[in-house]
Amino acid sequence: MTGEDISKNINLELKQQVKGYMIKPCLAVIQIGNNDINDTYINAKIKTGNEIGIYVKHISFSEDTKEIEIINKIVELNNDDYVNGIVLELPIPEKYNREKLINYIARNKDVDGLTDLNLGKIFNNKKAYIPCVAQAVLVMCDFYNIALEGKHVVIINRSSLIGKPLAGLLLNRDATVTVCHSKTENLQSIINMADIVVSAVGKPNFITKDMLKENTVVFDVGVSKIDGILSGDVDNNKIDTKVAYLTPVIGGLGPVGISMLFRNVIESYQKMNDDK
Amino acid sequence: MTGEDISKNINLELKQQVKGYMIKPCLAVIQIGNNDINDTYINAKIKTGNEIGIYVKHISFSEDTKEIEIINKIVELNNDDYVNGIVLELPIPEKYNREKLINYIARNKDVDGLTDLNLGKIFNNKKAYIPCVAQAVLVMCDFYNIALEGKHVVIINRSSLIGKPLAGLLLNRDATVTVCHSKTENLQSIINMADIVVSAVGKPNFITKDMLKENTVVFDVGVSKIDGILSGDVDNNKIDTKVAYLTPVIGGLGPVGISMLFRNVIESYQKMNDDK
Repeated sequence: MTGEDISKNINLELKQQVKGYMIKPCLAVIQIGNNDINDTYINAKIKTGNEIGIYVKHISFSEDTKEIEIINKIVELNNDDYVNGIVLELPIPEKYNREKLINYIARNKDVDGLTDLNLGKIFNNKKAYIPCVAQAVLVMCDFYNIALEGKHVVIINRSSLIGKPLAGLLLNRDATVTVCHSKTENLQSIINMADIVVSAVGKPNFITKDMLKENTVVFDVGVSKIDGILSGDVDNNKIDTKVAYLTPVIGGLGPVGISMLFRNVIESYQKMNDDK
Repeated sequence: MTGEDISKNINLELKQQVKGYMIKPCLAVIQIGNNDINDTYINAKIKTGNEIGIYVKHISFSEDTKEIEIINKIVELNNDDYVNGIVLELPIPEKYNREKLINYIARNKDVDGLTDLNLGKIFNNKKAYIPCVAQAVLVMCDFYNIALEGKHVVIINRSSLIGKPLAGLLLNRDATVTVCHSKTENLQSIINMADIVVSAVGKPNFITKDMLKENTVVFDVGVSKIDGILSGDVDNNKIDTKVAYLTPVIGGLGPVGISMLFRNVIESYQKMNDDK
């Protein structure tokens, strides 16, 4: 069973759940500027939303939009009772203040789990919105019975969307966690010690066969697009004779991540309707 | 210059700062039950507070105190304009709900930096109260010009007081960070890769010479007391021919940590008085 299959099963469950609702849940996705990878992810969200029965409201701003216009839109969505989740599709063009925009998203609609409070709760092992890619890694581990307790997980990413929340979640599951990034010296020897590697770099062939010890579990979370071709971080063709388990990002972790996002949207929907 | 010397210099600066204040700043320290190590730390806080000119209000509860009485006291301290910081001296007896008690402490008086929001802010590299021991490690690194960028720091502790905030701070400083704990497999080989080791376990002679590669920097943050003798985690006598730099907890990191705590108290004092 691949990530895509797991994702399909979860989506079916979510569809059943949504069926009983009077009003369709709604996820607002804000895009600023044009970016191939953003387009790919947003299209996948719209498609999966359709399958489950969740309306994905795609709001697209051109790259010359003033910041205040985007903020006004976020505030409008915060106050809209029919919007249950708000996602700012990352990355956004550099001229915008990412942190500022994110922190305008109402806490209860922050289904990507990017606010400071949410991250603190994850590290302190409390109920929180789990950023979807981080959650997808755990779902895959559980599905394939990959043990985490005491195991050494090397994460190559320190973003608040992937690396940091995943580090917190894995510590809560008793894994030993190393967080690596662009400044890391001796990356190769660190990866070579790992029982599990999670790579979210965004460079094709970043992880090669010679970097891994035998029977490492590899989660490929990086996405890049070169000459129109989507690629993960892992040199798939040459590597799979060595690893215990390899999940590609395309058709693997990606779809499971999107399922997790919609699970958060439904959670928010239920809370918003319970509070009424 | 030892940690004790560094601490003395910082305390002199803090003393100068406090001199100009109309009202003495006040740190409330709540102790539940009796514990030798708690006593040692609280006495050190009272002593250092005296030196700086900060009143340390020591509130001691016996181990048969009802939780609600402690909560009432915390609420009373939250509302007391003359109290600028509140510390629940850890560990507390197991029958009490640590998380519940901590989360009663008003955010602006949480000078140990233990709330969820505070931890999230640290990981997202925003202004926050830095838990004092974590801050002390950074102060020592800066004082001794120990490079952090790209270096591999292995932290043996995953508490919200030490390991987690320190991991966040070190990532913000571009270090590669591994968090180990009681469930870690292959601890020895992980430590053997470290450029810097921070040990906060609380077992005498936990770190021995054979575990370290040459020229590792070792921060000893563990404290234990056996037969009335305080000890760190590191087998001091045999180890120091091998390491680049070793700071003992007693007379080393401990005093610097206490200085950092009082710096947080003064910060809170200033904020409380600016807000008036």
